[in-house]
Amino acid sequence: MTKPLTNKETAELLLRRDNYLVFNHRRPDGDAVGCAAALCRGLRTMGKTAWVYRNPQTTPRYLPYLEGLETDAVPEGACIISVDTATPGLFPLDSDFDGKVVLSIDHHMSNEGYAEYTNVHPTAAACGEVILDILEQMQVPISKETAEALYLAISTDTGCFQYSNVTSDTFRAAARLKELGADTFPINKTMFGTKTIARLRLEAALTESVTFYAGGLVGVCALTNDMLGALGATEDDVDDISGFPRSMEGVQVGVMIRELDSTSTKISLRTGEDYNASAICALLGGGGHRAAAGATIQGTVEDAKRQILAAIESSGVTL
Amino acid sequence: MTKPLTNKETAELLLRRDNYLVFNHRRPDGDAVGCAAALCRGLRTMGKTAWVYRNPQTTPRYLPYLEGLETDAVPEGACIISVDTATPGLFPLDSDFDGKVVLSIDHHMSNEGYAEYTNVHPTAAACGEVILDILEQMQVPISKETAEALYLAISTDTGCFQYSNVTSDTFRAAARLKELGADTFPINKTMFGTKTIARLRLEAALTESVTFYAGGLVGVCALTNDMLGALGATEDDVDDISGFPRSMEGVQVGVMIRELDSTSTKISLRTGEDYNASAICALLGGGGHRAAAGATIQGTVEDAKRQILAAIESSGVTL
Repeated sequence: MTKPLTNKETAELLLRRDNYLVFNHRRPDGDAVGCAAALCRGLRTMGKTAWVYRNPQTTPRYLPYLEGLETDAVPEGACIISVDTATPGLFPLDSDFDGKVVLSIDHHMSNEGYAEYTNVHPTAAACGEVILDILEQMQVPISKETAEALYLAISTDTGCFQYSNVTSDTFRAAARLKELGADTFPINKTMFGTKTIARLRLEAALTESVTFYAGGLVGVCALTNDMLGALGATEDDVDDISGFPRSMEGVQVGVMIRELDSTSTKISLRTGEDYNASAICALLGGGGHRAAAGATIQGTVEDAKRQILAAIESSGVTL
Repeated sequence: MTKPLTNKETAELLLRRDNYLVFNHRRPDGDAVGCAAALCRGLRTMGKTAWVYRNPQTTPRYLPYLEGLETDAVPEGACIISVDTATPGLFPLDSDFDGKVVLSIDHHMSNEGYAEYTNVHPTAAACGEVILDILEQMQVPISKETAEALYLAISTDTGCFQYSNVTSDTFRAAARLKELGADTFPINKTMFGTKTIARLRLEAALTESVTFYAGGLVGVCALTNDMLGALGATEDDVDDISGFPRSMEGVQVGVMIRELDSTSTKISLRTGEDYNASAICALLGGGGHRAAAGATIQGTVEDAKRQILAAIESSGVTL
């Protein structure tokens, strides 16, 4: 049974102990990286020994935030802390933290309570909001680098403040980070204002091949492995592409069909408020949320297209 | 000679008078529309008669914010207020406000002081920040609709908090708007998460035709009138396209060449921190800022390309 901690209690625990190792989750995003970097820097500022566990899946664009903070070894007797990591199933590849985590700081409602102590704030848009408050409760001076790591965390987990998870607390946290000297423009430029040429070519190919139905209400894009190969696109380039059809003006039901292999296909659905993606995908044995859902089909891209169009039609849309 | 006013003095003036007409600038953007709508709504909430002057260039996507607020007629004896409008040269098309403006509320340093009273905050990222503070000084209850108009203003003038004009005050204003009930996600989806199919096709065409130099450091795109015609693109679709080449990963000197007519061409340059767009464009008789500048060339797109490449080379970049 894990013991829940408030931010104040978490700050007290962190001030009391020493010799920290902070880790984050598999395929770490900006929130995971920013939280690990900021917490490690904050602990060091308080005179503690602290390291970030080197996550083998950290992508190059996040590495500057971790400079000088990473270690491959688990220090003897380390106090192990996870950030932004809901379940042991998401512990870093090839790591061995099962049953050894002292403290889990997170914002996922689904946190499984695997650590000795758990501090979860499900209403926080980013785990970075929680880390900022904890550092402030510790009364640690927050450096420009730490503020920028936390800005990375908060901005990336909110799509630069665009998503529905943003609250007034999110904006207030961002305001504090600006006051602490965070230079946010270059971070925004890298994270939101830049695309790889492979990604742009992928979007161009999808724009040229999109099919509209019901007067543009439904937009269907398909992505085959041949296309990806021809474009030289990596998994990073494909990240988040599921939302692309729904980003076209007028599209309320956006369908992205992705070939997995010759016999299976993944369908991702994104819908506007009058349509239920989850109900439509349920007709194909899938599921998800009202605005975003998915299903995996045994069949080709053409099979998947036929099936999802039939499902959309039987949900009440005349194609 | 105009008389400068603080926000408190502005609030007092607004509470004292009545019968308001608020107008904004030519080709109104989200800040202009949001400020006019919010100020008008706030004044009405205080029991004042208030209207927004119908700007003939307001684009359809902004009209919902102005529902029930607009008038074509200038009311007899109206107290005329401009928002977000730096100079009489930007007064709405076919309007007749010269010498009649009582109060100008703005955030442009270049405000020319054309009104009887002027309230300018050059450090505000959006004029919406100023309007919010004035409404709060008036102690007017701010409705959800008013908060959303101000969120439109602040989010659009900052590229959804991405630009370098964002300050801690900007984020604090956004936090207050969330507390006042602004439903920000649908606004973000419309303003930042949606593109017209013509815009996407335009970006696809530019992606396919971009030429890179200096190992990808320089990216050059060209947009002809034939391309625009073939894509069915409107001026709205072309808005802000100057930044497109620089949004490609690795590009530090982004060049957008736009055909004006058969004998003249507009060059727009966007540069990273190590390059000076203004100095490069000065070589072609143009100018601007360090990160964004332009020049107009007498000649074809091909002429413009030759000239801008020569200018970039003579600025020290080996192509």
